[in-house]
Amino acid sequence: MNIIVDAMGGDNAPGEIVQGCIDAAREYGISLTLVGKEDVVWGELKKRNAPEGKFTVVHAPEVVEADDAPVAAIRAKKDSSMVKGLELLKQDPKAVFVSAGNTGALMAGGLLKVGRIKGIDRPALAPMIPNLKGSTLLIDAGANAECKPQNLVQFAVMGSIYMEKVMGYKNPTVGLVNIGQEETKGNELTKEAYRLLKAEKSINFVGNVEPRDMLEGVVDVLVCDGFVGNVILKLTEGVALGLFQMLKEELTKNAVTKMGALLLKPGFKRIKKRMDYAEHGGAPLLGVKGGIIKAHGSSDARAIKNAVRQAMLFIQNNVLETITDYVRSSEEV
Amino acid sequence: MNIIVDAMGGDNAPGEIVQGCIDAAREYGISLTLVGKEDVVWGELKKRNAPEGKFTVVHAPEVVEADDAPVAAIRAKKDSSMVKGLELLKQDPKAVFVSAGNTGALMAGGLLKVGRIKGIDRPALAPMIPNLKGSTLLIDAGANAECKPQNLVQFAVMGSIYMEKVMGYKNPTVGLVNIGQEETKGNELTKEAYRLLKAEKSINFVGNVEPRDMLEGVVDVLVCDGFVGNVILKLTEGVALGLFQMLKEELTKNAVTKMGALLLKPGFKRIKKRMDYAEHGGAPLLGVKGGIIKAHGSSDARAIKNAVRQAMLFIQNNVLETITDYVRSSEEV
Repeated sequence: MNIIVDAMGGDNAPGEIVQGCIDAAREYGISLTLVGKEDVVWGELKKRNAPEGKFTVVHAPEVVEADDAPVAAIRAKKDSSMVKGLELLKQDPKAVFVSAGNTGALMAGGLLKVGRIKGIDRPALAPMIPNLKGSTLLIDAGANAECKPQNLVQFAVMGSIYMEKVMGYKNPTVGLVNIGQEETKGNELTKEAYRLLKAEKSINFVGNVEPRDMLEGVVDVLVCDGFVGNVILKLTEGVALGLFQMLKEELTKNAVTKMGALLLKPGFKRIKKRMDYAEHGGAPLLGVKGGIIKAHGSSDARAIKNAVRQAMLFIQNNVLETITDYVRSSEEV
Repeated sequence: MNIIVDAMGGDNAPGEIVQGCIDAAREYGISLTLVGKEDVVWGELKKRNAPEGKFTVVHAPEVVEADDAPVAAIRAKKDSSMVKGLELLKQDPKAVFVSAGNTGALMAGGLLKVGRIKGIDRPALAPMIPNLKGSTLLIDAGANAECKPQNLVQFAVMGSIYMEKVMGYKNPTVGLVNIGQEETKGNELTKEAYRLLKAEKSINFVGNVEPRDMLEGVVDVLVCDGFVGNVILKLTEGVALGLFQMLKEELTKNAVTKMGALLLKPGFKRIKKRMDYAEHGGAPLLGVKGGIIKAHGSSDARAIKNAVRQAMLFIQNNVLETITDYVRSSEEV
């Protein structure tokens, strides 16, 4: 099992990334390949008492920074940990590459360096977003600002496969993000996508889902174009942060509210945790010829360990092969 | 000043609607026309000691219900308070029609019964949405699921005029909803709209606004197509409701949290109020040949009084003429 980790990507790299990999190696008994500045990465491994014989380090002297322009960074920084990691993945499509680095660059790099599965028109980013019962897979969350109806069907199929194989959902329900419940509602894209999704036999399509009901967790997979998906992802985060800000103002108002805040502190912490999508695991970029898991930029060791676990399940449960088989069988029809 | 109110529209009609109109008549010294079942409306007016000589009642025996199909309802229910009210508006474009009834039907009716201002391609719905500092005008919030870049420019202009004339914002800032700060980000619609908005001299365009920052209140007017606008409106509401639900679960957990909840009750109430967009006034349907203010379906007397106040300012500050003049001058260029 070949799991490659970008040791230099993310706000807490390389320390927390390396620690997460060590924890994963210990807990799951697996070996890992870390890509990054060789001396730095070996230094972190030694400092943290990494188990012997579990780590390979591939040297990459450059780093793609969080604010680098995605396509330009992939083209210019040929010796970065991200580009090197993607090249390793290209050599072994049965591998998975995990990175907490620049999301746009990882998506661009996935396309440019690894390439699409034949028959998949648009790879899509699929994070788990929080809901009241657990989480929902949102696909596409921003890889494709412009989509055709057929793209949304492929998103639905890939999302369903991932939810079943990696997240353990049986026959996951799929909903189309739309501004109305009825089949006839929405824009040209969603109206046509609805028709195609209803006809797609390999998924459990249950109809339109309105944004007002999303946090209720009414479906397991939410399908939309990448513009709308990115709005959903970021607005959910923004509204939650805004409300916590308002709460903070109210809680620190006077001695009485401060006392109340003290009594409720564990509860507030739990809510914050439930709403934090970094807690819900990494986001796969589905549709590329290999596994790519995007961990949240703010990932700590625990989040990285979880992303590595997702990578393991991705490989063990043949996600890539299942998507490839679906495309092949749907082309034969 | 001709203000026409749909006495039968909304969850709390006719009682709260009539009460709100009575309060407005008293506070602002204005006369109002109420449309609805004559005996019922007069009964409410008398029961509530309405001031003499301030009310005209126009009989409309039918009611457009909240779950009626919009276009069908406007066509079939010719004797409804909504259709009758829109016809009165058609006869006097200097008037404003206020309704808390079926939003879709009101938008359809505005187009079918009142018609567009010559030169405005798509009328748009523009509610005020909450932010940490106050509120932001969101245009379009759902009237047009499919938009062209030029539509967004007209939304920006109409929204700016409304914010200045009715809401009292001086030189309101305008932001384009987009999934990235940079000019080159987004889909085909937003990229081209950015270019056109930047070139439009009559507005104070400040660039793209990402959904994550919306609740911060970074601009006064948020421009987007009606699909994205409806997602924003409903998702903000849904996330807020979901978080309140989580809070409730935490607050009622045990005796300690219940005590904390008691101490913080006033604060929670204030937050709920800040996030409730019914509190932020009615939403104008801008671009039709007359004033239409959509009050929230759950409006109480106070919300209706505020919507009537918006109607007054709409007339007094010549919103319709200003929009018409803009179209005329931009066609002359």
